[in-house]
Amino acid sequence: MKAVGIIAEYNPFHNGHKYQIEQAKQATNADTVIVIMSGNWVQRGQPAIIDKWTRTQMALENGADMVIELPAQCSVQPADIFAKHAVNILANLQCEWLSFGSEHPELDFNRLANIDLRRTVIDQDYTKSYAELIRIAISNATGEDVNAPNDVLALNYAIANLNNNHKMKLVPVKRNGANHHDLGLNDSGNIASASSIRKAIMDNSDSLDKFIPSSSNIDALENHVSWEDFWPLLKYKIETSSIDDLNQIYQMNEGLEYRLKKYIYQSQSFDEFLRLVKSKRYTYSRIKRLFVYTLLNWRKTDELNQEYVRVLGFNKSGRAYLNDIKKDVNIPIITKINKELSENELNFDVVSGRIYENINHLPQDAGKIPLIY
Amino acid sequence: MKAVGIIAEYNPFHNGHKYQIEQAKQATNADTVIVIMSGNWVQRGQPAIIDKWTRTQMALENGADMVIELPAQCSVQPADIFAKHAVNILANLQCEWLSFGSEHPELDFNRLANIDLRRTVIDQDYTKSYAELIRIAISNATGEDVNAPNDVLALNYAIANLNNNHKMKLVPVKRNGANHHDLGLNDSGNIASASSIRKAIMDNSDSLDKFIPSSSNIDALENHVSWEDFWPLLKYKIETSSIDDLNQIYQMNEGLEYRLKKYIYQSQSFDEFLRLVKSKRYTYSRIKRLFVYTLLNWRKTDELNQEYVRVLGFNKSGRAYLNDIKKDVNIPIITKINKELSENELNFDVVSGRIYENINHLPQDAGKIPLIY
Repeated sequence: MKAVGIIAEYNPFHNGHKYQIEQAKQATNADTVIVIMSGNWVQRGQPAIIDKWTRTQMALENGADMVIELPAQCSVQPADIFAKHAVNILANLQCEWLSFGSEHPELDFNRLANIDLRRTVIDQDYTKSYAELIRIAISNATGEDVNAPNDVLALNYAIANLNNNHKMKLVPVKRNGANHHDLGLNDSGNIASASSIRKAIMDNSDSLDKFIPSSSNIDALENHVSWEDFWPLLKYKIETSSIDDLNQIYQMNEGLEYRLKKYIYQSQSFDEFLRLVKSKRYTYSRIKRLFVYTLLNWRKTDELNQEYVRVLGFNKSGRAYLNDIKKDVNIPIITKINKELSENELNFDVVSGRIYENINHLPQDAGKIPLIY
Repeated sequence: MKAVGIIAEYNPFHNGHKYQIEQAKQATNADTVIVIMSGNWVQRGQPAIIDKWTRTQMALENGADMVIELPAQCSVQPADIFAKHAVNILANLQCEWLSFGSEHPELDFNRLANIDLRRTVIDQDYTKSYAELIRIAISNATGEDVNAPNDVLALNYAIANLNNNHKMKLVPVKRNGANHHDLGLNDSGNIASASSIRKAIMDNSDSLDKFIPSSSNIDALENHVSWEDFWPLLKYKIETSSIDDLNQIYQMNEGLEYRLKKYIYQSQSFDEFLRLVKSKRYTYSRIKRLFVYTLLNWRKTDELNQEYVRVLGFNKSGRAYLNDIKKDVNIPIITKINKELSENELNFDVVSGRIYENINHLPQDAGKIPLIY
């Protein structure tokens, strides 16, 4: 059996994701589609709008054969670290192909990934994000402008894949019908970006049926969460932490703990706090990830690089594939979380799930077994 | 000028408190009544039902000439430590008398306070509370049964006073009309216990006008808080803390951190959690104080014994008295909290006020000046 891997957040799952799965399957003729998906906290430093189980269900109903959770400590990370872990877990699962959405699938991502970034790194300008540094390096070397968000992510996957022993064939799929940052649902088609769907869900403003596959559980979208729901907890955490406490938080560098303490008391909402803490030096994603680390109490001394295969759900094909290859997987495969795991290897996921659960009131980890389709 | 001191919580202020102030004034003929009052967190380990400013206002409108805040780290303590700090601050304020409510004002509290407790301490039975140990020692030595809650507190004041260089004359006032633990408002009189008034406020069940002086701001009682309001924060704190983190909390001894971790996830409310953590070994107050320490992040390494005179409000008489004696006060007198104080000496009060403020949305410390009547 041969598998194609997809790295996703499905925040939330929509027609564009369904289309990408179909295209990946068609282009590769794979037996199995394996999705590795962020859990309840996503790469850009925010809670997923809908919990991981609902998003898993939507994926399994629309072409995925198995959904694996990208551990929280791997998903709430800059794109390069996010990509490295996701690619490594898919490689461990012996995927033959790696498929991803891209604004410009005609780009030769392998060739771009091969460009030596070191010359740029030497002149590193701290006011620029890592993504921007990559963009400049590539532009200097090739004249190509890798700028669109999915192209940038794709490039990170390609670089991670290049550095991995088990190399997957890259299968870019043209993103269809919507730009990543489109915020309206006015398209004539039935594909809108996840950002615009999130906005519509939060605003309760548009009918979403057109943009989300009809087979999935649209009612579950009503139990949505956002950073504002966690604002009282984040505020409490920062207010009861000393500067020294905050300094122990992962990625709390360059005096950011003073900015957090300085602005917390005068902020009436998460958005206001985020705007006050933000400076030219940092992207919004960097700051929001720091807020996730603070909320979840991740510390500099914590081991945040553990990888495992946490199965959220599968169908017959996914299960057969996993049985087929599991002897070759050299990281733990986890289907049920016992007390031992919950207090050790999976502690970050379990805690991050409990904090999420305090808001959406649906069990995330304790006693859960994979969804079976 | 001569002052009588009163140690109080006014949780909330009611006719019995007004009566006690009147009696204290009448019995002593003092020029000034100084009340030292717990702030937003009270001795038995819970948030005050109404914030300290409203309670200060009620006291000033009903006979008190000055209200001082007992620092949070002194108020959320077992009765003996609570008494020691409150008595010491009143002694610093050169009070001539110390007046308190008592079920049995005919008791000779000075004589009882002189009884050597050491014999009992040697046989200390850890299943008994400190109050009960005192009761047994006194019963053994004198045959007197000091059992009623205000008598026990009074005895603690008497012991603290005996150990203080500046000794105040004790002025017990007969508690009138209600037992401390009465939970109904069915009395024929106009005095009910604070517990029964709190219960009525929480249940929104009885008209309170009869039991609370008519001059005070009864509407303010609508902005009441309880432990359940802080439950999401306490739950979050325990869920994101490791066993080692919890072990650093003040008074987290004898493996209590394991009990907290064991029961937090299965508890749906503060009351349920409290009942699960409670064991024969501990009183409810001991456990609730531990929850306050955990919520407010007080640590074993913190210096929790600082005393100062934090003025919450006064009238002309109170102000004149303070001017008169301030040269003899050897702890800081604080009327306004600046940044320096807020980050250092007063940090515990300021943080405890901010956490309270997150629930009742009324400023507690930043920029506040004493109420002037």
